[in-house]
Amino acid sequence: MTSPTCLALPKIRFERGFLAGRARLVRDVVIPYQWEALNDRIPGAERSGTVSNFQIAAGEKQGEFYGYWFQDSDLAKWLEAASYRLATHPDAALEAELDGIIAIIAKAQQPDGYLDTYVQVKEPHMRWKNLFEYHELYIAGHFIEAGVAHFEATGKRSLLDVVAKLANMIERTFGTGAGQIPGYPGHEEIELALVKLARVTGEKRYAQLAAYFVNQRGQEPLYFEEEAKRLGFAKLPVYYHADRWDFQQAGRPVRNLVDPIGHSVRMMYLTTAMADLALTLPDESLRRACTTLWDNLTRYHLYLTGGVGSEWMGEKFAERYDLPNDRAYAESCAGIGLVFWARRMLDLQLRGQYGDVMERALYNNVLAGMALDGKTFFYVNPLEIRPHEAKRRYDMHYVKTQRVPWFGCACCPPNIARTLTSLGYYTHSVLSDGLAVHLYADCRLEATIAGQKTAVALHTDYPWDGAVRVEVSPAQPVTFTLRLRLPGWCTAPGARLNGQKVDLAAHTRDGYLYLAREWRAGDVVTLDFPMPIQRVRAHPAVHHDAGCVALQRGPMVFCFEQADNGPLLSQLRLPKTAALTARFDHDLLGGAVVIEGPAERVRASNEELYSTAEPAVSPATITAVPYCLWNNRGEGEMRVWIRES
Amino acid sequence: MTSPTCLALPKIRFERGFLAGRARLVRDVVIPYQWEALNDRIPGAERSGTVSNFQIAAGEKQGEFYGYWFQDSDLAKWLEAASYRLATHPDAALEAELDGIIAIIAKAQQPDGYLDTYVQVKEPHMRWKNLFEYHELYIAGHFIEAGVAHFEATGKRSLLDVVAKLANMIERTFGTGAGQIPGYPGHEEIELALVKLARVTGEKRYAQLAAYFVNQRGQEPLYFEEEAKRLGFAKLPVYYHADRWDFQQAGRPVRNLVDPIGHSVRMMYLTTAMADLALTLPDESLRRACTTLWDNLTRYHLYLTGGVGSEWMGEKFAERYDLPNDRAYAESCAGIGLVFWARRMLDLQLRGQYGDVMERALYNNVLAGMALDGKTFFYVNPLEIRPHEAKRRYDMHYVKTQRVPWFGCACCPPNIARTLTSLGYYTHSVLSDGLAVHLYADCRLEATIAGQKTAVALHTDYPWDGAVRVEVSPAQPVTFTLRLRLPGWCTAPGARLNGQKVDLAAHTRDGYLYLAREWRAGDVVTLDFPMPIQRVRAHPAVHHDAGCVALQRGPMVFCFEQADNGPLLSQLRLPKTAALTARFDHDLLGGAVVIEGPAERVRASNEELYSTAEPAVSPATITAVPYCLWNNRGEGEMRVWIRES
Repeated sequence: MTSPTCLALPKIRFERGFLAGRARLVRDVVIPYQWEALNDRIPGAERSGTVSNFQIAAGEKQGEFYGYWFQDSDLAKWLEAASYRLATHPDAALEAELDGIIAIIAKAQQPDGYLDTYVQVKEPHMRWKNLFEYHELYIAGHFIEAGVAHFEATGKRSLLDVVAKLANMIERTFGTGAGQIPGYPGHEEIELALVKLARVTGEKRYAQLAAYFVNQRGQEPLYFEEEAKRLGFAKLPVYYHADRWDFQQAGRPVRNLVDPIGHSVRMMYLTTAMADLALTLPDESLRRACTTLWDNLTRYHLYLTGGVGSEWMGEKFAERYDLPNDRAYAESCAGIGLVFWARRMLDLQLRGQYGDVMERALYNNVLAGMALDGKTFFYVNPLEIRPHEAKRRYDMHYVKTQRVPWFGCACCPPNIARTLTSLGYYTHSVLSDGLAVHLYADCRLEATIAGQKTAVALHTDYPWDGAVRVEVSPAQPVTFTLRLRLPGWCTAPGARLNGQKVDLAAHTRDGYLYLAREWRAGDVVTLDFPMPIQRVRAHPAVHHDAGCVALQRGPMVFCFEQADNGPLLSQLRLPKTAALTARFDHDLLGGAVVIEGPAERVRASNEELYSTAEPAVSPATITAVPYCLWNNRGEGEMRVWIRES
Repeated sequence: MTSPTCLALPKIRFERGFLAGRARLVRDVVIPYQWEALNDRIPGAERSGTVSNFQIAAGEKQGEFYGYWFQDSDLAKWLEAASYRLATHPDAALEAELDGIIAIIAKAQQPDGYLDTYVQVKEPHMRWKNLFEYHELYIAGHFIEAGVAHFEATGKRSLLDVVAKLANMIERTFGTGAGQIPGYPGHEEIELALVKLARVTGEKRYAQLAAYFVNQRGQEPLYFEEEAKRLGFAKLPVYYHADRWDFQQAGRPVRNLVDPIGHSVRMMYLTTAMADLALTLPDESLRRACTTLWDNLTRYHLYLTGGVGSEWMGEKFAERYDLPNDRAYAESCAGIGLVFWARRMLDLQLRGQYGDVMERALYNNVLAGMALDGKTFFYVNPLEIRPHEAKRRYDMHYVKTQRVPWFGCACCPPNIARTLTSLGYYTHSVLSDGLAVHLYADCRLEATIAGQKTAVALHTDYPWDGAVRVEVSPAQPVTFTLRLRLPGWCTAPGARLNGQKVDLAAHTRDGYLYLAREWRAGDVVTLDFPMPIQRVRAHPAVHHDAGCVALQRGPMVFCFEQADNGPLLSQLRLPKTAALTARFDHDLLGGAVVIEGPAERVRASNEELYSTAEPAVSPATITAVPYCLWNNRGEGEMRVWIRES
């Protein structure tokens, strides 16, 4: 397969259906809301300080830096999301807002290209001195991503020039050459951003800089260990518990990593860059490392919802198979990072399992991060909650029982926004010899495929229904290969080309259907992905899920909420033989499929805490709703895994 | 019932059987070992500094205070245990050691009676200034207990005089009178100690001082809140999470407490004193408060092992029914505190359930705290452990996978020691009109009952066998009531008096068999408590135990260890119909009953993390051993609750 090209965003539109609705919410509600938040104009919300910090750094106002040392990144992620929005939905007022803030950013940038308002305003003497904790390179990465997105959306170089100057400054500063700093970021991000910058500028040296950062990580002597000595750290931070330098994937060279380890967002951003570089450079050893890490993540460290990271302290990966439900971390940003990585793995090799995991993470973990009204967000996404317990126990204090409007550490909301405004990047790949469809959503796209301008329309009610109609309309007949992902959850897919049944066995490779032919206007492929209700069980080594089953239908993982089932969900049991039915409820949660069926409720046979008596069992009914829509009806218990009897 | 009298220790001896073996271990191994530890003479062990601190305070050596602010209490608890040892097993060398250290303590005591080496050596200006955190009154309590024990064991007043002087100083200092401090201890302990001091000195004012401390707790304005303001605390400590002042049972008057709350050892020491005072003063409202708290503890907050406290941060009680097994706290000291309280409740009212809980806590939670060789100890007593997970996860870092030799915070080892050296206090009550037997253990006691010198011998292999022979031998025939606890776990007890079957229904009240008659030398009561293997289930509201069963036989809770069953214990299932057998294994764990039977092991049907396939099930056998003996064969998985199929 030849190298893929990122589909330019203006040429794809999602107008109807589930994902389109979520994307519209981001465009219409989230982006304007977040802009107000970044400007500290939302009464009652936690102060952000972000725009203010830039104004201070630019000399436009007096004041103190406010917020975390990584506060700048909130603005960068918002700029990226807003740029994607401009790309698909031009808006002169928004574009003017961007021009205004970009001018302030440019003014805040120092003459040598340095840009980090925390260090500039608060600790100028600490420039590049504490890579271990400070986020200068992380923030640079987010601004580079924003600069690329802004340039691609508007054609303006204003922000791109700022970030190129910053990248050049970083290129001069870091490396193993004389007078250079042989360090790397405490939080990965810039690596994947530099690959984007290389692509859009055509300057391969940015990819080389990314490769330097990736290759230098974990080389002896360990940079962070040396830095900690210089800074006189008496002891390592508590979030280093058990993992030490591996917390930041900096304890050994990245090619020696076997399982994902340490801070999960950091890990996902690193693997995303590793896959990018494996393809771009190319680098076969990075490709092998990616494959090993992918296999071990999906086999040992992935929640059913596509969430990753199962330990609070350090927001970390834990032991193999250690996936607690009520103490999950499964941070929204880590799920987004997994979507990033999966998408890059598809560029490396078109395998259905990458699309399967991308779909699982997006439809469940990531979408759960945002409320139906787009106004509140989850940072942590547990698979089980008992609100009174989560509020009382300190070891669950990080699990919020309801989404919150904005966080002091507001990484997740703008991350969700930039993902949902760039959906087209995840759904399709335009390849030199064709088109690949990874995710199914109602949309229309235009692209030049094999040199021919081609329109492709997908009509579907996915994820509620598995029928998909693909209309291919080249301006002139053209030969190329259409690649259509056959979802891994679907055990009996069907396909027809212009009404003729396609022999799937003959045309499927690695989970994708390959249709190579001369396409003419009016060609239609119909896909059928039946969506029975599936009972999913975890590997028996996941002790947290022992004796339990979860329900899935299509790509959607379901959950049981108190709103439908009453409290004490642990007392519900789903008999193996219970006949479950699915129906679409237009009035529920913005319109969603619900699953219903008979169940049992275990009841106490007496008041004793411990008893030799068997508990009583009475019949009950249960209702399950899509996990990504939970907690839109007030606070209550929820669980994904239910006991099976 | 008339007021009970604590049985003087010299008159009861445990020579054979399970408890006698554990007590012997304490006498022969633990007490000498701890004395070396307190003197910093154990190579490789964590430094204690305790004796050294007293030498410094006494002006006998130069140096800095070492250890926690409550370090003094380790010495006091050891003195108490060593005194009990002297009482039952005179030992001139040990007595001389005690005389020596008591002389140093007396020299360290300040002229006004004050005694706390941390404050004296390190922060003299802080005397009584930080009751919230410092442990001056807690330490005083432990020294008072030691002084009483030493006096009762040896007849010497040397330590008793020191602690009486200290108590007098405290009596002058605290109270609501002019110039007095209207405060109370941050950690309860002195209250129960003052009741002992009142008993042994005959001075009721010490009980009145205890009552002041109990009654003043939680009265508005909250003393600790005022004190925190005076000390300028910017915020409350993190262990106050969710409970605030209730962490120290200081947020409301003790009579308003409904559930046990806050730090579990503090709570148990408080309720012990409340029961003491309810009886001693007497105080009917304290009796009612005790009953409410008891009922709610046993209904909602008690582990099957008799452990209490299910949250690490703050070592606290949690929500009702929130009893996680792998994240249990169930501190050894809290279990000991529950034994103390239960024993006092038996003084208040002779009810079998108090004895049942005392037995459950002692035989399971408390005894698990000490290794079979008496050299290592658990502070936290989980009901389930997977070592690799507990070591990796920060939120389980407090759960040790193996017992450790000595702790910096060494509260538990000497607490276990003083409990096992004073067993006779828990097994029997000598009453003005008879004798009550609460716990069954092979022993011989002599007491004056109803004015007549009487020997009572118990012969039994309890807890492995439920046959008990009670021989009553008064010097002259004497009429009194013998009260024998019928264990709550026993569904079919039997009793014979001189061979004649006793009509239990007619003679049992509140779980005790009452035999009122004229006793003559040679009278024999035989008790039979059949010990079938019992399958215990938790109330369905305890979601942690859902679908699981535990095994109990007699008072012993059993557990499944990796040493017998291999790893991945969560994959084992015990069928409802499985026939289990118990046998005594002389070679195992110092001789113990083991339970064996057929079971099932769930196995993966494929390598997938999630699958719609049902797991494979293969036959297996399981072996359970007494919980209190776990972790005597190296590190490995363990669980009390096993899935039932």
